[in-house]
Amino acid sequence: MTTPQTTNLQSPISDYASPFLRACRRLPNDITPVWFMRQAGRYMPEYRAIREKYSLLEICHHPELAAEVTLQPVRALGVDAAILFADILLPAIPLGVGLEFAKGEGPVLQNPVRTMEDVKKLHPVNPETDLGYVMDAIRILRGELKDVPLIGFCGAPFTVASYIIEGGSSREFLKTKTMMYSDPQTWHTLMEKLAVVLSDYLVAQIRAGAQAVQVFDSWVGALNPQDYEEFVLPYSQKVLQAAKNENVPVIHFGTNTTTLLSLMKRAGGDVIGLDWRIPLDDGWKILGDDVAVQGNLDPALLFAPLPVLKQRVHNILRRADGKPGHIFNLGHGILQNTPVDNVKAVVDMVHEFSSIVE
Amino acid sequence: MTTPQTTNLQSPISDYASPFLRACRRLPNDITPVWFMRQAGRYMPEYRAIREKYSLLEICHHPELAAEVTLQPVRALGVDAAILFADILLPAIPLGVGLEFAKGEGPVLQNPVRTMEDVKKLHPVNPETDLGYVMDAIRILRGELKDVPLIGFCGAPFTVASYIIEGGSSREFLKTKTMMYSDPQTWHTLMEKLAVVLSDYLVAQIRAGAQAVQVFDSWVGALNPQDYEEFVLPYSQKVLQAAKNENVPVIHFGTNTTTLLSLMKRAGGDVIGLDWRIPLDDGWKILGDDVAVQGNLDPALLFAPLPVLKQRVHNILRRADGKPGHIFNLGHGILQNTPVDNVKAVVDMVHEFSSIVE
Repeated sequence: MTTPQTTNLQSPISDYASPFLRACRRLPNDITPVWFMRQAGRYMPEYRAIREKYSLLEICHHPELAAEVTLQPVRALGVDAAILFADILLPAIPLGVGLEFAKGEGPVLQNPVRTMEDVKKLHPVNPETDLGYVMDAIRILRGELKDVPLIGFCGAPFTVASYIIEGGSSREFLKTKTMMYSDPQTWHTLMEKLAVVLSDYLVAQIRAGAQAVQVFDSWVGALNPQDYEEFVLPYSQKVLQAAKNENVPVIHFGTNTTTLLSLMKRAGGDVIGLDWRIPLDDGWKILGDDVAVQGNLDPALLFAPLPVLKQRVHNILRRADGKPGHIFNLGHGILQNTPVDNVKAVVDMVHEFSSIVE
Repeated sequence: MTTPQTTNLQSPISDYASPFLRACRRLPNDITPVWFMRQAGRYMPEYRAIREKYSLLEICHHPELAAEVTLQPVRALGVDAAILFADILLPAIPLGVGLEFAKGEGPVLQNPVRTMEDVKKLHPVNPETDLGYVMDAIRILRGELKDVPLIGFCGAPFTVASYIIEGGSSREFLKTKTMMYSDPQTWHTLMEKLAVVLSDYLVAQIRAGAQAVQVFDSWVGALNPQDYEEFVLPYSQKVLQAAKNENVPVIHFGTNTTTLLSLMKRAGGDVIGLDWRIPLDDGWKILGDDVAVQGNLDPALLFAPLPVLKQRVHNILRRADGKPGHIFNLGHGILQNTPVDNVKAVVDMVHEFSSIVE
């Protein structure tokens, strides 16, 4: 096993060989690289077979299982990047908030954080010891993956805070926003703490071998730009900068973010995610040519008949116009019950597009 | 009781006296008018007292109760418009889809529409007989409301279709989108049918005395612009045009619609709703000066301390810059447990703003 600190420098995969890593750095490519958020998951029979025996958290906690599940879509789909199988809420466990997945109900955090006392009770987190199983999975994967780069990830401070404050998923984020508006000192203290924990966690993943990282701010689109700038941007910036300092490409992802794109770019990221609500070229125009973009197929389109799906995939690729710096992906994660054949078909459509004359 | 067909022409409230109706027509006002989506509801003790004895549907079905509940916020808050108490899914009952409200779970439609056979089984709807209780409530209200105009409303075809197809609320709208993509003939047949029913329903409300109407396309922001244009716009247009032909102002509302605003304007409406994700002036710039706008406070801000709330209310009013054609409102409906005092405070802040020198 290589020394974690030097893995990226001595990587057998040069940035110059991987279409995914090239696109992150806006280098020209023969093909548009493609991977899918939540590409490992319930829609795959191989994954369901493992989930029959192990819970989601058990898979995360066992590096061999997490590695195996991470590899499944790489083998089955031919995607251009692997993304570590993990959950953005894993850091909640060593923080002391508690985490379980209630059947069919998503994450439940048993000790939600609502007051300054709650924030002060949060434990310090050492990722190498407290989340070492994640780094172990990364180290195993770097031994297994040949020419496919591995993406590490964490939740952004806002999205993680929203779960920790609400105690689970939310539609309105009312407790989260109320803390911002009514108790900003507690909010800022919590976000500062999360920014440190998430930065350390992301850096540890990079040092263990992750060749790119994605910061998931999945729910930040619930905010207006003023709130994003004041309550979120400085903390996302810390996490994104910490990853950038490690010299790997950083992807900054959110949904419902049309009005936040300029601020998200300011917060950081070599690649910015675009969901399906904004045409890819319009989103890229807002962001500017000095960042790469990732997206932006509606995950629901993976349920469409192939001709419809193909028309939409081609539409996105035409809007990207062959400009260096486009990574094809969905606008959000793959949905349960997505037909695997359609996912595979999209990989082929994207790869074949460059040779199509229309 | 006045003859329904002539109520609006002979209205004792001239368009020229009501700040709300003046703003709808982009006429100058001394004050910015304000009302709130879902201003009648559980956050009000008067409403909860009635809900202890009657279910939501029972209130809708009894015109005196619906009228009483409609009047509660007018009395308590001093808003510039009343909005009829009803539910956008009431037309689902005569359509034969079935409607009940499961405790704490939102609407449940017992016979969801998934196939062409299901669409063909939908009953024709005569609003004056099948939804006559709504028109009766409007007629009662026009007798009670003095100088406060009454807003009627319906759901837009997409939003109503989404409930009818999914069988209730949804996060992903997967069944809805799958019908669009996989069975467009069924989709278009359903939307055509809903456009007729909703147009007739809205026109009946206007003829019964509604002095303005709002078309709620609450969930349309789940779509990309291409899908909106192809699968939704023509049907929203029919409903909006039917109302426009009756010579009352029409408000076209959605959330998460930043990338859809130009298309929503094309579909129609004298007033377009803006949610809190887009700064009011930016949204108005996209729409152009030839429409009025309504919005755009985040409903969560009603839980904030008064100084924070005031700063945000003033921010919106400053962005509107006194231009004729701004109706102050939330970006979506009032949330449960909202403090009534804060809602009242916003009405006063908005009304007092024009006299503040800053």
